[in-house]
Amino acid sequence: MTPQNPSFVEEIRQSFNGQAAMTLIGASLTRVDPGIIEITLPYRADLTQQHGYIHAGIVTSIVDTACGYAAFSLMPAGSEVLSVEFKVNLLRPAKGKSFIARAGVIKPGRTLTVVRGEVFGVDDSGERQLVATMLATMMCLRKA
Amino acid sequence: MTPQNPSFVEEIRQSFNGQAAMTLIGASLTRVDPGIIEITLPYRADLTQQHGYIHAGIVTSIVDTACGYAAFSLMPAGSEVLSVEFKVNLLRPAKGKSFIARAGVIKPGRTLTVVRGEVFGVDDSGERQLVATMLATMMCLRKA
Amino acid sequence: MTPQNPSFVEEIRQSFNGQAAMTLIGASLTRVDPGIIEITLPYRADLTQQHGYIHAGIVTSIVDTACGYAAFSLMPAGSEVLSVEFKVNLLRPAKGKSFIARAGVIKPGRTLTVVRGEVFGVDDSGERQLVATMLATMMCLRKA
Amino acid sequence: MTPQNPSFVEEIRQSFNGQAAMTLIGASLTRVDPGIIEITLPYRADLTQQHGYIHAGIVTSIVDTACGYAAFSLMPAGSEVLSVEFKVNLLRPAKGKSFIARAGVIKPGRTLTVVRGEVFGVDDSGERQLVATMLATMMCLRKA
Repeated sequence: MTPQNPSFVEEIRQSFNGQAAMTLIGASLTRVDPGIIEITLPYRADLTQQHGYIHAGIVTSIVDTACGYAAFSLMPAGSEVLSVEFKVNLLRPAKGKSFIARAGVIKPGRTLTVVRGEVFGVDDSGERQLVATMLATMMCLRKA
Repeated sequence: MTPQNPSFVEEIRQSFNGQAAMTLIGASLTRVDPGIIEITLPYRADLTQQHGYIHAGIVTSIVDTACGYAAFSLMPAGSEVLSVEFKVNLLRPAKGKSFIARAGVIKPGRTLTVVRGEVFGVDDSGERQLVATMLATMMCLRKA
Repeated sequence: MTPQNPSFVEEIRQSFNGQAAMTLIGASLTRVDPGIIEITLPYRADLTQQHGYIHAGIVTSIVDTACGYAAFSLMPAGSEVLSVEFKVNLLRPAKGKSFIARAGVIKPGRTLTVVRGEVFGVDDSGERQLVATMLATMMCLRKA
Repeated sequence: MTPQNPSFVEEIRQSFNGQAAMTLIGASLTRVDPGIIEITLPYRADLTQQHGYIHAGIVTSIVDTACGYAAFSLMPAGSEVLSVEFKVNLLRPAKGKSFIARAGVIKPGRTLTVVRGEVFGVDDSGERQLVATMLATMMCLRKA
């Protein structure tokens, strides 16, 4: 997959830093490649639901963000990306020392891009387990 | 829809209060009825994405929580609820002074319950606009 | 919801008649209103899966078609409609003497329209039961 | 992924042959392995929608069936499989000489199994193109 926007890496880093919600939850951007994005989230007790696992909405926050930028990385310069919709299957309780959301574009398009996202829980020994999978549709908008 | 657990209201309130992620984002439980739940989230700048709207993952957090408790409200005593999967369509930018996530059970079941969720942005004049819609599958687990 | 294309009813009827798959399964278009479509499918033994109920894919066929035309009914003249994606929850076994797929637009848009679809099984006494619910994204294309 | 039911291949073949809808559309079961199923559908003009491509509901029929049997292949003897829900993204017009639906289990479970499905269009030269992707939840029921 070939990027059309030569400055996609910088633009994604800058945009990510402008996402207050990512700062609030403590997520960081750990991989930016054409069509592939990773976001890492350390476990924090204030991100949990009633059973002590990371809340499904927080899990969704990092993988939706990763999917959006994965789509954006293949869009032309002057684009904005918008989440149209996503579906998430929660496969296991989101437990771990940290979490990695990985997104990969399945089908880029002029208007719509379809992206697959996965979230892994990482334990103390570095072992990864898939905790959620996303299938998302992202839209390309031309910046005004 | 008839509740089977006479103390579902108290249990939902207590469980909600135990959700650290709901406290973090400032959400509160504003309606608890059999098969129907509402959660309210005031706008906060630290919940936004790069365009200044509430992050789709935060929107998802409140509506997933509402859908989970809507399902739980119809489950027998001694149950736990688990999100199996959800799909969210983001219909408009999540702007407003506050946000209301409303969930209503479509089809209760012994093991699986299907729930519809909606998120409204509320402006200064109290006008509501639908910003997202969710279709979710929730699972009933028996507490160990 | 106000139609923009004065001949949407005729265009939908003509398009439906051109859908060979609808003819194959015996579906007919039974309601065409702005933003609302119904399709009726009589039970036939050759549409079933291994347990004797209507196959989930056939159920999907009628409700996807209904959702597509519901979106189309609100599009400007000279448009074509395309299914971007849909999610279906199968709520009960698809049993009945006939089936009604009903679609209603939730949010029309210039490019994307979000539609809710429902499929009811109708028994001998005319009683309806909800067997499936769809949440779909439809896209407007300009005819070449 | 290890099958628990030693006769899963025969049971899947027999069940598939009992699906009248699969016979109606001309689909055949072309691969049965633990956690992996393929179904092949030759193009037929009577399976198309208004633009001459295979109807999204027919595409869904083969990939839902493949996902169901992929889940079933890992279930214990005496099980039945039920589609709980699925989401389909339609990536390209379903054109081709034939179509292959391939399903692979992502996460098997005692009650619920999550499966990914893909549908490829195959042209005259044997070249494959991805036309749709599914993310599905399947349920295990114990035969009465």
